[in-house]
Amino acid sequence: MKKESTKSSVTPWEVKGRIDYDRLIEEFGVERLNSFTLDRIKKHAKELHFMLKRKIFFAHRDLNWVLDEYEKGNHFFIYTGRGPSGPIHLGHLGTWIFTKWLQDKFNAELWFQFTDDEKFLFKQNMSMEDAEKWTYENMLDVIALGFDPKKTHFIVDTKNADLIYPVALKFAKKINFSTVKAAFGMSNENNIGQIFYTSMQAAPAVIPSVLKKKNIPCLIPLAIDQDPHFRVARDVYMKLGYYKPAIIHGMFLPPLSGVSGKMDSSGDQINSILTTDSPKEVEMKIKKYAFSGGQATIEEHRKKGGNPDIDVSFQYLRMLFEPDDEKLAKLEKDYRSGKLLTSELKEILIKKINDFLKDHQAKRKLAEKQIDKFLYK
Amino acid sequence: MKKESTKSSVTPWEVKGRIDYDRLIEEFGVERLNSFTLDRIKKHAKELHFMLKRKIFFAHRDLNWVLDEYEKGNHFFIYTGRGPSGPIHLGHLGTWIFTKWLQDKFNAELWFQFTDDEKFLFKQNMSMEDAEKWTYENMLDVIALGFDPKKTHFIVDTKNADLIYPVALKFAKKINFSTVKAAFGMSNENNIGQIFYTSMQAAPAVIPSVLKKKNIPCLIPLAIDQDPHFRVARDVYMKLGYYKPAIIHGMFLPPLSGVSGKMDSSGDQINSILTTDSPKEVEMKIKKYAFSGGQATIEEHRKKGGNPDIDVSFQYLRMLFEPDDEKLAKLEKDYRSGKLLTSELKEILIKKINDFLKDHQAKRKLAEKQIDKFLYK
Repeated sequence: MKKESTKSSVTPWEVKGRIDYDRLIEEFGVERLNSFTLDRIKKHAKELHFMLKRKIFFAHRDLNWVLDEYEKGNHFFIYTGRGPSGPIHLGHLGTWIFTKWLQDKFNAELWFQFTDDEKFLFKQNMSMEDAEKWTYENMLDVIALGFDPKKTHFIVDTKNADLIYPVALKFAKKINFSTVKAAFGMSNENNIGQIFYTSMQAAPAVIPSVLKKKNIPCLIPLAIDQDPHFRVARDVYMKLGYYKPAIIHGMFLPPLSGVSGKMDSSGDQINSILTTDSPKEVEMKIKKYAFSGGQATIEEHRKKGGNPDIDVSFQYLRMLFEPDDEKLAKLEKDYRSGKLLTSELKEILIKKINDFLKDHQAKRKLAEKQIDKFLYK
Repeated sequence: MKKESTKSSVTPWEVKGRIDYDRLIEEFGVERLNSFTLDRIKKHAKELHFMLKRKIFFAHRDLNWVLDEYEKGNHFFIYTGRGPSGPIHLGHLGTWIFTKWLQDKFNAELWFQFTDDEKFLFKQNMSMEDAEKWTYENMLDVIALGFDPKKTHFIVDTKNADLIYPVALKFAKKINFSTVKAAFGMSNENNIGQIFYTSMQAAPAVIPSVLKKKNIPCLIPLAIDQDPHFRVARDVYMKLGYYKPAIIHGMFLPPLSGVSGKMDSSGDQINSILTTDSPKEVEMKIKKYAFSGGQATIEEHRKKGGNPDIDVSFQYLRMLFEPDDEKLAKLEKDYRSGKLLTSELKEILIKKINDFLKDHQAKRKLAEKQIDKFLYK
């Protein structure tokens, strides 16, 4: 019998419905991150990032190979990116915070791609000027997270086309329309820029190798919706004589409305908390919109307890704002038991977010003067 | 009843069979160049190029509009190009010789595009390095024809991608796969670079307008096989708020083997005369391979006369090497009457070609030091 459709969908341009990560592992053909690989990471990093311990980064491709190379002295660079279609919200930060940890622990170069072409091509109403504006704004957020300007290169698809387009062509020559149709669900109605685009995203994983004229391993931290680009390009890397990049896959931070889909700031903004939100806005959004796993009344909550698994505030603490495992475990225990009320949990989260944003916004302001140090020239 | 197929085919990537230019005018929806428009050109140029008088440039789009604008003081620039897939042969020269005449007579800027991406994407065995090498070699030939470096800009798709790719994206967003399928006969097996490519060829017709932030008319001289690119982009120019470029369409110089298809140097080279051929090679190729419209024996030729319409040597004189109408008319008359033998006609052509190539090769050598003045920076 056919299993009832969960109506979920995960492509680079749409994530909706309740996401079944186990199914994605199978569908995408990636490996679950296991304790063997985690131990190897820990050996080199001297610690495990809480996003690894908590399996927020939960799957990978070829991570053991990239660690083999690392152990042989063949160090990897990191490649990740951002489609500059709007303001940065909390949902974007997880991958980049983890990326910075990787940069620090493995002393790795980072190539950070801003795919302004993608956003222009895939968003009907987005102009080039919009994409340019968001590229600038988004760069401020990335810089504010503390990446090392000496080891970080921002590349912008339209501005660095001299660098990226010629490499992208090598991928494009070996990918046909049948393949992108199958991988991304494209049709004859897709515009020809959308069809070509995946090769622009495949390219940076070899650009340092092209520039240095030697094969350098690449590790890509990404949210799992971006995996299809690299699945499509996977064989091509080898055909072109490059290493296939290793990938580590993260989960999506849920929107305020509940643990389905992913946080998204391009539609209505009541489902997301932006990095530019004021303390009052954060407080209002969490109090008013953050889906609660608690009970309808305090009495009932004390009796039955809450469900942290579907509680958005708890999930934000787990995924982003409470790195301390013991503290998190206590919150979970108290919430399940009914000792901790939703309103109390929300206050804890609001404080955490606002402390983070106060610092982030100050650094974001300083970043305006630092952009030039990050731009690839 | 269905008309018997002539098995001819004209796309930007294949020209084969006997070309029915009347049918192309209808199929492509272009206008035949008539005496009204020719008179207008003559008024400004003070003369008519022999390729216009002889209808070698035979059709157009919006040429009267571009002349209207010219008469209002809104001068056009010229855009043409070259796919650098191999050496330059005589078949390439016609369009560029005519283009230089346009530049001189209308004091027009010329944007000359080298589509190295196209050749890499469409030729299975062509590497980027090959395309780069041919770009350089082909530039020498273009420069040797005498274009004014102060008014001529060479752009190379991969080298000037910063300039071209962002503009190409605007076209790509408004062209879908159905359209390129229909216009170019593409299928799901085409690679995604080929599918995108047409937008890279559409872009230069507006690049001066983008750079100067005002709408500048554009005139494109091209061989008619390139028309589909601009047919596809036609509506898009307007949607983007630019003028549609005017186009003037030329015929193909036939290969040595006879008046079908077009001269092509990428396959076997016995069908083409290269700009780098020695006088001996030219003599051998013409004598041995140039299809003759003459009779089998001298006796028969004297009696029945030759047919210049299918005589490749006569056609080369008509299309490229004998600008003097009276001299050409005499050659035609004498050949038809049988007074002029094929061997004599060939001697005349060989002399003309070798005189031209001697000069061209000297200029081509000097061009090595001039390239830098032509490159867009």
